[in-house]
Order: sequence, then C-alpha cells, then structure tokens
Amino acid sequence: MAKTVVYSTRVEFGHCDPARIVWFPNFFRWIDHASRHFFVECGVPPWHETEKTMGVIGTPIVDSHSRFVKTATYGDELAFEVSIPEWRGKSFVQRYRCMRSDDLIMECDEVRIFAGRKEGEPEAIRALPIPQEIRKLCE
Amino acid sequence: MAKTVVYSTRVEFGHCDPARIVWFPNFFRWIDHASRHFFVECGVPPWHETEKTMGVIGTPIVDSHSRFVKTATYGDELAFEVSIPEWRGKSFVQRYRCMRSDDLIMECDEVRIFAGRKEGEPEAIRALPIPQEIRKLCE
Amino acid sequence: MAKTVVYSTRVEFGHCDPARIVWFPNFFRWIDHASRHFFVECGVPPWHETEKTMGVIGTPIVDSHSRFVKTATYGDELAFEVSIPEWRGKSFVQRYRCMRSDDLIMECDEVRIFAGRKEGEPEAIRALPIPQEIRKLCE
Amino acid sequence: MAKTVVYSTRVEFGHCDPARIVWFPNFFRWIDHASRHFFVECGVPPWHETEKTMGVIGTPIVDSHSRFVKTATYGDELAFEVSIPEWRGKSFVQRYRCMRSDDLIMECDEVRIFAGRKEGEPEAIRALPIPQEIRKLCE
Repeated sequence: MAKTVVYSTRVEFGHCDPARIVWFPNFFRWIDHASRHFFVECGVPPWHETEKTMGVIGTPIVDSHSRFVKTATYGDELAFEVSIPEWRGKSFVQRYRCMRSDDLIMECDEVRIFAGRKEGEPEAIRALPIPQEIRKLCE
Repeated sequence: MAKTVVYSTRVEFGHCDPARIVWFPNFFRWIDHASRHFFVECGVPPWHETEKTMGVIGTPIVDSHSRFVKTATYGDELAFEVSIPEWRGKSFVQRYRCMRSDDLIMECDEVRIFAGRKEGEPEAIRALPIPQEIRKLCE
Repeated sequence: MAKTVVYSTRVEFGHCDPARIVWFPNFFRWIDHASRHFFVECGVPPWHETEKTMGVIGTPIVDSHSRFVKTATYGDELAFEVSIPEWRGKSFVQRYRCMRSDDLIMECDEVRIFAGRKEGEPEAIRALPIPQEIRKLCE
Repeated sequence: MAKTVVYSTRVEFGHCDPARIVWFPNFFRWIDHASRHFFVECGVPPWHETEKTMGVIGTPIVDSHSRFVKTATYGDELAFEVSIPEWRGKSFVQRYRCMRSDDLIMECDEVRIFAGRKEGEPEAIRALPIPQEIRKLCE
C-alpha cells in the first residue's frame, strides 16, 4: 500500500460560483496544495532548497485526469487523500480522492515530473530522473 | 467540423508561481472562461437567463482530461481553441487546445452536463437532457 | 473589547509569485474567508439562510484600507485576528491583523454592509440597517 | 497630467460568488495585472530582466486604499485606468479607476515600491530608490 497523506480544507463563500457550488478550478488549487503537503509531510524539503541541493524546482504536472462526482458548497469540510501509487523512470502518478465525510466529491490522477531548469534556457524546464532519496521518503 | 471559437488571454505575473511558470490551476480558470465564452459567442444567453427559461443553471464538469505539453510564463499570449466535438444524451465533450502562436501549450477534453436544480434540494444539481436549441447554436 | 476570532491558514507554493512571496491578492482572498469565518464562529447562519430569514445575501465591502508590513512565503502559517471594532447605522468596520507568530505581516480595515437585493433589480444590491440579532452575536 | 494606461478585462462566471457579483478579491487580481500592464505599455522591461539589469524584482504593495462603488457581474466589460500621480523617494502612488462604460465601479490608490533582494536573505526584500530610467518612461 502506498503511503497516504490527508490534506484538509474548508470550502469558503468565495470558492463558490453563482450556481452556489465550488467553482471547479478551485479543486485544482487544492490539489496542488495537497500535492506539496504530501511531500512536506513525507519529509521532503521545500523546492527552493531542493533547487540548490538536487536541482529540483518543483513537480509540474504533465497529465491530469479528474472525475467530478458530487458538488460541494461553502461550509463543507473536504479531505484530500493523497498518495503516489506508481513510480516511473522520469515521472510518477499522484492520486487524490476528495472526500466529504464518506462522500466521494471528486478524484484525480496526475502524472507529474521532478523538474529542473534547462541550461541556457532559464524559462524552460526538463524532467529529471526520479530522485531516489525523495522516492524513499514517499513510498 | 465542429464550430471552433477562440478565447484569448495574456499570462500575467500573478498567474506564475515561484518556478516562474503558469501555476497550472490557472489553466482551468481560463478553460472555464473559454467554455462560457464559447456559448456566448454561439449566441447562448447567460446562465441566469437560461435558468428562468429552460432551467439550465450552468454546465458543470463531470470529467476532465488534460495534457500539459509546454510551459508558459508572463507576457505570453495564449489562445484557447474551443469546440464541442461530441454530443451525448445528457452530456457533451468540450475540447480545448491552448496555443502560443504555433506551440501547443496544453490541451483538455472535458465532459460537461447542462445542470438544473433538483426539486426540494436547492444545493443539489442534476443533468438535464441536452437542450436542442442550445445544441443547434453550437454545432 | 470587541470579540476577536482567529482564522488560520498556511501559505502554499501556488499562493506565491515569481518573486517567491505571497501574491498580494491572495491576502484579500484570506481576508474574505476570515470575515465569513468570524460570523460563523459568532453563530451567524450562512448567507443562503439569512437571505430567506432576513434578506441578507452577504456582507459586501465598500471600503478597504490595508498596510503590508512584511512579506510571507510558502510554508508560513498565518493567523488573521478578526474583529468588528465599530458599528454604524448601515455599515460596520471589520478589522484584520495578519500575524506570523509575533510578526505583523499585514493589516486591513474594511467597511462592509449587510446587503439585500433591490426589488425589481436582481443584480443590484442595497445596504440594509444593521440586523441587531447579528450585531449581538458579534460584539 | 500623469500618463494613463487602460487595462481591459471581462468579468467571467467564475469571478462571481453566490451573490452573483464579482468576488471582491478578483478586483485586486485585475489591479495587479493592470499595474504590470501599465509598466509594460510604458516600455519597462519584464521584472526578470530588470532583476538582472537593475536589481528590481517587482513592485510590491505597501499600502492600498480602495472604494467599492457599484457591483459588477459576469458579462461586464471593465476598464481600469491606471496612472502614477505621485513619485516619492523610495515609493510611488499607483492609481486605478475601474469603469464599466461611464459607471465608476471601484477605485484604488496604492503605495508601491521597487523591490530588490536583501543580500544574504534571499526571501527578504527591500525598497530601492526610484529608478529614474523607469520613472521617465512612466510620467
């Protein structure tokens, strides 16, 4: 079983749209917070440190697949269960299940990479091989 | 060929994260803007009008699949090409290709529904059959 | 002394801009969350209930004055101390002090109203007299 | 008369809250976009270039005063008129008037600085003297 870390948040008024439900891009904001929270809880240093020590500037997303099952509205308490069920050579799958108590609200599978800067092209990034010291912390 | 409408936006400083690239949830903000822009350009009235005339309060997303191909940063001009390549009984596929000139930045296929309120449950929504007058405007 | 309620949040990677500090509009997101949190903690029902019972649809802002004292970055834990130091006939002052431990990060004084809909103009809002039952809960 | 540059944007569904009006933190998002747009239109290079040439990493806000006059909702076209009416030794006042045709929606006066990094403290910033070459472009 992959290690699972929970990221909790509460839906606020301003997260909701005129239909009075969460405006869906906010789920992706929370998912990105939950992704970083997962690494922090696993003991991985912040990206501005890993940039210096191993050249990792973050974990940008390359693919994302989401299913939206139930709506949520303000006042709801959401729990994102986060894990990394699959490690590949230069990418990994990060999985999120967003629950409101026992109700599945949405779920998402992402493919992410550990990114470094391309030499000579400060705006461009490239996928690094999975840093084994990070992988060990997260399994 | 499905009708295609372009939604244009410019990446601003505040859309970018400490890695100096677009923080990815912003792509979903733009995609939702582009979705509504598509309907507006096709001649569909705003949702607060369709709520009264046909019970449609919006087009919530039920499934989303995205590929992130290249990064973007502030100053970039992005064009989202939007179309509806597939109509089903109670849902439709809305497609987005985000271009920076000739470069594909990201693309996304969503399944959305036309939502109405559930009677007696003002917070809950349900999928309505595709309104044919809307479909005709968008094909 | 006015009642004080604390709203806590953590700064995430995506809240920060390429200068690696909180993109300032995010402070106003948190302030609005903190404003509603204050009312919830004081026992005021959610706005979709007060809309039915007393015509209050929310507490829109009419004036806002902020001072930004220190920067914050991801990983920081922020505490917004919220109070209502002043009640007027149709408006009130809501005050926020955003602390990181003992450091003042920013502070804000807002003037807000309790808003109701204008009859015959569903998009327009008007200031209602301060609902005394809400004031009592918040003092 | 100070140089005035207009930043235009359209209010989208997702910018609005359950009261069906713009969620006010979004005004500050647009204001920050409008601030940078002002400098770009005046011919100031992007901050990642000025960081190298003159140590300027951006123009963080130190004080902000806003008045919200009318509400806006989705479909509205907003024009932010931006100018710098006052230059001080190490700060400047940036002014915004947000119009919908002839209607004033909100206005804001900010104090901002040109920020550089503090030596030895990469997270901390300090106010630089106003770069005269930038001031000349913006008057």
